[in-house]
Amino acid sequence: MNNKLRLGILGGGGDSLIGVLHRVASSMFDQYQIIGGCFNPNPKENKEFADSIGLNPNRVYDTFEIMIEEEMKLPQNERIQVVSVLTPNFLHYPMAKKLLENGFHVICEKPLTTTHADALELQKIQKEKQTAFAVTYTYTGYPIVRQMKEMIRKGVLGKIQKTDMQYYQGWINPIIHDKSLRNSIWRLDPKKAGISSCIGDIGTHAYHMLEYLTGMKVKQVLSDLNHLYSDNELDIDGTVLVRFSDYSKGVIRASQIATGEENGLTVAIYGDKGGFRWEQENPNFLKYFTNDKPLQILKPGHPYLSEFSLQDTKLPPGHPEGIFDSMGNIYNGVARKIKGIDNFEGAFPTLEEGVRGMKFIEKVVESNAKGNIWLSL
Amino acid sequence: MNNKLRLGILGGGGDSLIGVLHRVASSMFDQYQIIGGCFNPNPKENKEFADSIGLNPNRVYDTFEIMIEEEMKLPQNERIQVVSVLTPNFLHYPMAKKLLENGFHVICEKPLTTTHADALELQKIQKEKQTAFAVTYTYTGYPIVRQMKEMIRKGVLGKIQKTDMQYYQGWINPIIHDKSLRNSIWRLDPKKAGISSCIGDIGTHAYHMLEYLTGMKVKQVLSDLNHLYSDNELDIDGTVLVRFSDYSKGVIRASQIATGEENGLTVAIYGDKGGFRWEQENPNFLKYFTNDKPLQILKPGHPYLSEFSLQDTKLPPGHPEGIFDSMGNIYNGVARKIKGIDNFEGAFPTLEEGVRGMKFIEKVVESNAKGNIWLSL
Amino acid sequence: MNNKLRLGILGGGGDSLIGVLHRVASSMFDQYQIIGGCFNPNPKENKEFADSIGLNPNRVYDTFEIMIEEEMKLPQNERIQVVSVLTPNFLHYPMAKKLLENGFHVICEKPLTTTHADALELQKIQKEKQTAFAVTYTYTGYPIVRQMKEMIRKGVLGKIQKTDMQYYQGWINPIIHDKSLRNSIWRLDPKKAGISSCIGDIGTHAYHMLEYLTGMKVKQVLSDLNHLYSDNELDIDGTVLVRFSDYSKGVIRASQIATGEENGLTVAIYGDKGGFRWEQENPNFLKYFTNDKPLQILKPGHPYLSEFSLQDTKLPPGHPEGIFDSMGNIYNGVARKIKGIDNFEGAFPTLEEGVRGMKFIEKVVESNAKGNIWLSL
Amino acid sequence: MNNKLRLGILGGGGDSLIGVLHRVASSMFDQYQIIGGCFNPNPKENKEFADSIGLNPNRVYDTFEIMIEEEMKLPQNERIQVVSVLTPNFLHYPMAKKLLENGFHVICEKPLTTTHADALELQKIQKEKQTAFAVTYTYTGYPIVRQMKEMIRKGVLGKIQKTDMQYYQGWINPIIHDKSLRNSIWRLDPKKAGISSCIGDIGTHAYHMLEYLTGMKVKQVLSDLNHLYSDNELDIDGTVLVRFSDYSKGVIRASQIATGEENGLTVAIYGDKGGFRWEQENPNFLKYFTNDKPLQILKPGHPYLSEFSLQDTKLPPGHPEGIFDSMGNIYNGVARKIKGIDNFEGAFPTLEEGVRGMKFIEKVVESNAKGNIWLSL
Repeated sequence: MNNKLRLGILGGGGDSLIGVLHRVASSMFDQYQIIGGCFNPNPKENKEFADSIGLNPNRVYDTFEIMIEEEMKLPQNERIQVVSVLTPNFLHYPMAKKLLENGFHVICEKPLTTTHADALELQKIQKEKQTAFAVTYTYTGYPIVRQMKEMIRKGVLGKIQKTDMQYYQGWINPIIHDKSLRNSIWRLDPKKAGISSCIGDIGTHAYHMLEYLTGMKVKQVLSDLNHLYSDNELDIDGTVLVRFSDYSKGVIRASQIATGEENGLTVAIYGDKGGFRWEQENPNFLKYFTNDKPLQILKPGHPYLSEFSLQDTKLPPGHPEGIFDSMGNIYNGVARKIKGIDNFEGAFPTLEEGVRGMKFIEKVVESNAKGNIWLSL
Repeated sequence: MNNKLRLGILGGGGDSLIGVLHRVASSMFDQYQIIGGCFNPNPKENKEFADSIGLNPNRVYDTFEIMIEEEMKLPQNERIQVVSVLTPNFLHYPMAKKLLENGFHVICEKPLTTTHADALELQKIQKEKQTAFAVTYTYTGYPIVRQMKEMIRKGVLGKIQKTDMQYYQGWINPIIHDKSLRNSIWRLDPKKAGISSCIGDIGTHAYHMLEYLTGMKVKQVLSDLNHLYSDNELDIDGTVLVRFSDYSKGVIRASQIATGEENGLTVAIYGDKGGFRWEQENPNFLKYFTNDKPLQILKPGHPYLSEFSLQDTKLPPGHPEGIFDSMGNIYNGVARKIKGIDNFEGAFPTLEEGVRGMKFIEKVVESNAKGNIWLSL
Repeated sequence: MNNKLRLGILGGGGDSLIGVLHRVASSMFDQYQIIGGCFNPNPKENKEFADSIGLNPNRVYDTFEIMIEEEMKLPQNERIQVVSVLTPNFLHYPMAKKLLENGFHVICEKPLTTTHADALELQKIQKEKQTAFAVTYTYTGYPIVRQMKEMIRKGVLGKIQKTDMQYYQGWINPIIHDKSLRNSIWRLDPKKAGISSCIGDIGTHAYHMLEYLTGMKVKQVLSDLNHLYSDNELDIDGTVLVRFSDYSKGVIRASQIATGEENGLTVAIYGDKGGFRWEQENPNFLKYFTNDKPLQILKPGHPYLSEFSLQDTKLPPGHPEGIFDSMGNIYNGVARKIKGIDNFEGAFPTLEEGVRGMKFIEKVVESNAKGNIWLSL
Repeated sequence: MNNKLRLGILGGGGDSLIGVLHRVASSMFDQYQIIGGCFNPNPKENKEFADSIGLNPNRVYDTFEIMIEEEMKLPQNERIQVVSVLTPNFLHYPMAKKLLENGFHVICEKPLTTTHADALELQKIQKEKQTAFAVTYTYTGYPIVRQMKEMIRKGVLGKIQKTDMQYYQGWINPIIHDKSLRNSIWRLDPKKAGISSCIGDIGTHAYHMLEYLTGMKVKQVLSDLNHLYSDNELDIDGTVLVRFSDYSKGVIRASQIATGEENGLTVAIYGDKGGFRWEQENPNFLKYFTNDKPLQILKPGHPYLSEFSLQDTKLPPGHPEGIFDSMGNIYNGVARKIKGIDNFEGAFPTLEEGVRGMKFIEKVVESNAKGNIWLSL
C-alpha cells in the first residue's frame, strides 16, 4: 500500500473555485489521494461530480454525517484520514466538530466558524483528540512568506517597531452604490455573512499574516469601519490600529471599495535592524531593507534562503510560484505533521490561529460600534 | 528691461541643499532672476556665498531687516519682488510677517510657522496686502500630481470614498535607538523642532497632498503616535484616521522609523468610478484603476493629459521629471500668478494651505495626547 | 466509469522536478488520472516511486517497450490513452515513435528529438495515426500569453513590424570559467546535449514563443554565438537576427552567461497599431502600448480578456498564476483535443511546432559556423 | 568678480526644448552665468528671446561669427569662456570649428557633425588648442550611470562577457505608415538628417553608453536595418551585433517603430562576477546581480555609492533625479575641468567620444548596405 494520506472533501463540488484550489494543492507533493466525500447537498449532482473527478462511488456520501458514520466502520488503514471542509461558513463548525470528535484530521477553510465561542469549542475538542487541524489562511504558504517568517524569527529585522498590513480589493464597489444590489447580496447579509464583511473576509487574512510573520500577539485594537450607506449593515472598509506593546505599534488596512484593486494584500514590517515589503500579487519578490546597504530583492529557490522556504519551492529560481503553490505548501505542512516528518513552525495555520482570527473580527466590530475605542484582544 | 521677476533669497547659503533646490527651480522657466538676499547670518560667509553665485554685492545684506529696509528705498522697478524664505523654521514667521507688511511676494519653505496662531497672523496680513504667498509643499509640483488633481476635479474618480496616504522614511532609525544621539539631535528637541517630529516634518506633507488632490477638507482626526522611548519627547511615527464625512474616510500613515525607507510618500485615492495609486520615488508613473477596464499607467508629456499637467512638462515623454522639476513648477505657478498669466487652481500651495498644515499638526498631537480621540479640524 | 483520461508517464521519477511539474499539471482540470508508466530505468526504484505516488503496481513497467506491449493487450476502455515522455532527450525519439505507431496520444518534453530528421520522421507517423501530440513549450500556457496570441490574431497590434525576444539566464556562469567544470558538465558535451547548449535549451523557447504569438513563420536567420573558451564546444550565448519578410524583422537574444539572471524570458512585439511587452518572471502583467493612449496593464481573470485566456484562469483576478498553471493549461488543451471539446488554436504546442524548433537550432548553429550569414528556415 | 564661468549659447531660442535643458543644466551647480550668444537666426526674435531670459543686449549677436569676433575684442576676464552649440546638426561643425580656433571651450549637442571626416577635423584642432570640449550624450550624467561606470572600472562585474543595449522609441510609427508624412518629415530626408535616422539619432546614444560604461572599444559591427518602405531612404529600426573581442560580444538594438515606447534606453551588462540592468525611464534604480547573492537595487545618494556618483547627487536618497539633473552633471563636469578641479574620468563625454559616434553611424549603415557583413570600427 502506498504512503499517501487518504483525503476526504466536504463541499467544493461543481464549478467551485475553492474546490479546484484544494484538489490541486493536495496533489502537489504526492502526499494525498482523494478518496471520497460529500461535494454537493444535491445527491445526484454529488455523485456526478465525484464521478467526474474519478472517485469510487462507494466512498461518495449524501451527507457529512453519513460519511463519518460509514468511514468509521472501515478498518483504520482504509478509512479517510484527513477531511477538507470547503462548505459555506456556517457549516464549518458542525462539520469540524463532528470530524474532530471522531478523530479525523481537518483542513478547514476560513473563517473557522461564525463566532468566537464556536471556535473555542472546536479548540477544546481538538486538544483532547490531538488531531492535526489547519485553517487555510492561504497566503502564508508562499515560499517568500515563509522566508520572511524565518528571517524575523532569527532576528534579522531586530526588534519589530512598526507594522503595516494592507488588504485592498475593489470588487464590492460596483455593487455597493446600487441599493437593490447591496440589499440582496449574501455577503452583506448579517444572517449569512456574520457580523462583518470586509474585516471578516479579508481583514482577518491581514491580521493573521501579521501575527504569523512577526510571531507576536496583538494586544489591543482600535478600529474605524465604513459602511458607506446606512442601509448597509456590514463594514466594507476599515482601518484598525493595533498595538503589540507601547513600543511596537501598527495598522491594518482593509477595503472592498478600493475601486479597481484586485487582491492587494501587502506586508510592511520594520525592526530596528531592517525592514520588509511584500505584495501578494507579485509574490516572488521580497524587498529587504537595512539602514545602510542597498535594497535587496529576495526570490524563491536560491541557496541564500532558509530551509523552510526552500522546502516548499518546487522548481529552480525564475519559475514563478502562484496561489496554487501557496495552498500546496500548506497541504504539505499538514501531511508532514500527520506523518511525523520534521516540520517547520508555521508550516500550516493552526486551529489556535483560526480561533484568534474569530476574536479579532469580534473585537474590531465592537471597537467601531463603541466609538472607535481601544479594546484588548 | 527683461520681464523676469526679481528674486531675493533668505537663507539657503553654503552647502544648503534646499538652497540649491530653490535656485535651480527658479531658473527652470526663465521667470526669475536672483538679485540678492541674505544667505547666511555670518556676514563674511554671506558675502562669499553671494559672490560664488554671481550676485551684485550691493544687493547682499547682513540681515533680512536691512534687506527689506534697503530694498524699499529702491524704485519699484528695481526692487526685489519675490522673496524665498529658506531659513530655520522659527525664522519663517518674523521674516514672512515683515515681508508681507512691506508688500513682497513670498515663497516660504514648510512648515509655515511653528504655531497655528502665528500662521493665522500671517494669513491676516496677506489678506490685506494681497501679495502672492506660496508654501513649498514640494511634491505637489510633479506633472503627474497635477494630473491627479485635475482628473479628480473633473470627476473622473467619481465621489471620493476612501483615501490612504503614506509617508515612510527610515532615517531616524539609526539615531533613535542610541540614547545619546536621540537626546542630542535638534529634530527631537521640542525647543527647536516644535511639538512634533514625524507629523510636523512629513505627516503634514501627506495631509497637504490629500487635501490638494481631493479638493476636500478633513473634518476630524484621531491619531496614534509613537515615541518608542519615554525619554524621547517627540513622535517619530504615527497613524492618523481622518474623516471628510461619515461617508468618506481615510488614513494618513507617517514614519521616520520605517527602517530602510527613503522618502516613501505614496498616494491611494478611490472614488466610486475609479482609483489612483502613485509613489513619489517613481513620480512619472500613475496607476489609474477602474471597475472594469485594464489598469492604465499615465506618464508625463502625453496629449491625453490635462493642460495643467502638460504646462509644466518641459520635455517629451520618457524624459524623467525629478524633484527639481516639481519645485520648478511651483515657482512657475507663483510667477504666473504675479504676472497675471492665466493659471490653474493648485499651481502652487497657498498660505491658506500652510495655515491648515499647522492646525493639522496641533490637532494630531492633541488627539494622541488625549488618548486617541477624535478632534475636529 | 469516470471521464478522466488515462495517463501514463515515462521518466520523471524520484526527485525529478519535471516529474512534479507534469503530475501537478495533469491534475489541474480534473482531466487526467495517472494510471502507470515507467519512471526509472532501475526496476526497484521504479516500483518504489510508483508506489509512493499511489499507483497500481500492475500498471508499472520495467521498460517503455513492455509498457506498450502490455497496455495494448488491455481492452481499449482500460488502456492508457495518453503518455507523457519526460526522459532524457535522446530517448524522446524512440519512445515517441513507438507510442505513435501504437496509437497513443503523446505529451513530449522539449526538445522533441536530437535531430531535425528524427523530428520529421515522428511527424510523418503522427499524420498517419492522427493522434494528439503536444511538445511542452511550457511558457505558452500562461493566460496572459494566450491573451497576447488572441489579440495579435484579431489584429489589435496591426501588422507586425518589429519583434524582440529575450531568454537570459546566468546559471552557467559559475561553471564556464572553470576549465574542469566546463569540460565535465553534460550540458556542454555534444555527445549528450546535441549541437547546441544555449540555443538548443532556451533559444528554442524564445523562437517558439515568437512564432506562437505572432502566427507568422520566420523565413531567415543570421546568428552570432559565443562559446567564450576554445575548449568549450557548444554555444552558451547567442544573438539571432530573424526575418519574417523584408518588412518585418526581429531579433532573438539568448544567454546562459547573463550573470545573475534567473529565467528571463521576455517578449516585445510591435505592430503598426500597438505593442506588447511581457516578462515570464512576472507572468501576470502584460504591458499593452498604443500610439496615443496610456499604457495599459492587462492581468488574468478579467472579463475584458479573451475567452481563450479566461478558459484557463482558475481563480479571480489578483490570485497569481505560476508555472504549474501554465503547464496545467497545456494539459487541459491536450485533454480537450482528445475529448473533442471545442478548443482554441494554440491550446497546446503541436508536433509541427516541435519540428520547426529542431530546424531552428540546426540553422542557427550553421549560420554561426559559416561566418554569420543568412540561412533560410 | 564671482567665479562663475561665462557661458554663451548658440541656438536654443524660442520654445526650444533643448534650450531649456541646457539653461537649467548650466544653473544647477552655480558654475555658469549665461552672458550672451545668438539664439535665433532672426535678429528680432534673437533679441527678444535674449531679453526674455534677462541678458544684456550688448552681448547678444546676430550671427555666431559676429559673436566670436566681438567677444575676442573683450579682455579675457570678461570674454565668454564656454559656448554651448544647440543649433541644427549641420551647423555644429562650422560653429565648433571656429570656436575651437579661437580658443573657446565648447559644449556641443550630438551628433557632433554630419560626417566622420568633419568630426576628425574638429578633433585635430582641439588637440592643438587644448580647450575643453563636451558632446552632450545626456544620459551619461545620471548618478546611477556614473555608479555603473565606476563599479565596472573597479572590476566589480569582473571581465565583461556580454552586453546588450536597447534604445526603443515609437514616435515615428504614426508617421511612417503615411506616405505623404514620411516623404515630408525632415528626419527622414537624407539631405537634412544625414545618412541615418534611427542609428544616427538614438543608436549612437546606446553605442556611446556602451563604451562609456564598459571602458572598452567596439572592434567590429554587423548590422541589420529596417526602412519598412522602399520610398523611405533612412533606417528607422536596426539591430547591430558588436564585438569587443572573440570573447566579449554584444548587441545594440534601436528602433523608432517600437509602437508606444517612449524613450526606452536600457542597459544590460554582464561580467564573470556580476551584472547590471538599468532603464533610463526609471533612472534612480540600478539592478545589480551576482551569482549567489540576492539581487540588489542601488539608488542615488547613499554612502555605499562611489564618490563620482555622490558628487553629482544634490539631495538625499528618495528625491528623484531627472533628465535635467543628468545634463546638469555634464555641465558640472565641464566646469570642473575648465576650473582645474579634480574630476572623475567620464565626468563629461569628450570630443573623442563624439568622433567615435560618427564613425559608428557610418559603419553601421555600410554594413547593412553591403548585405549585413562585419566591418571594423
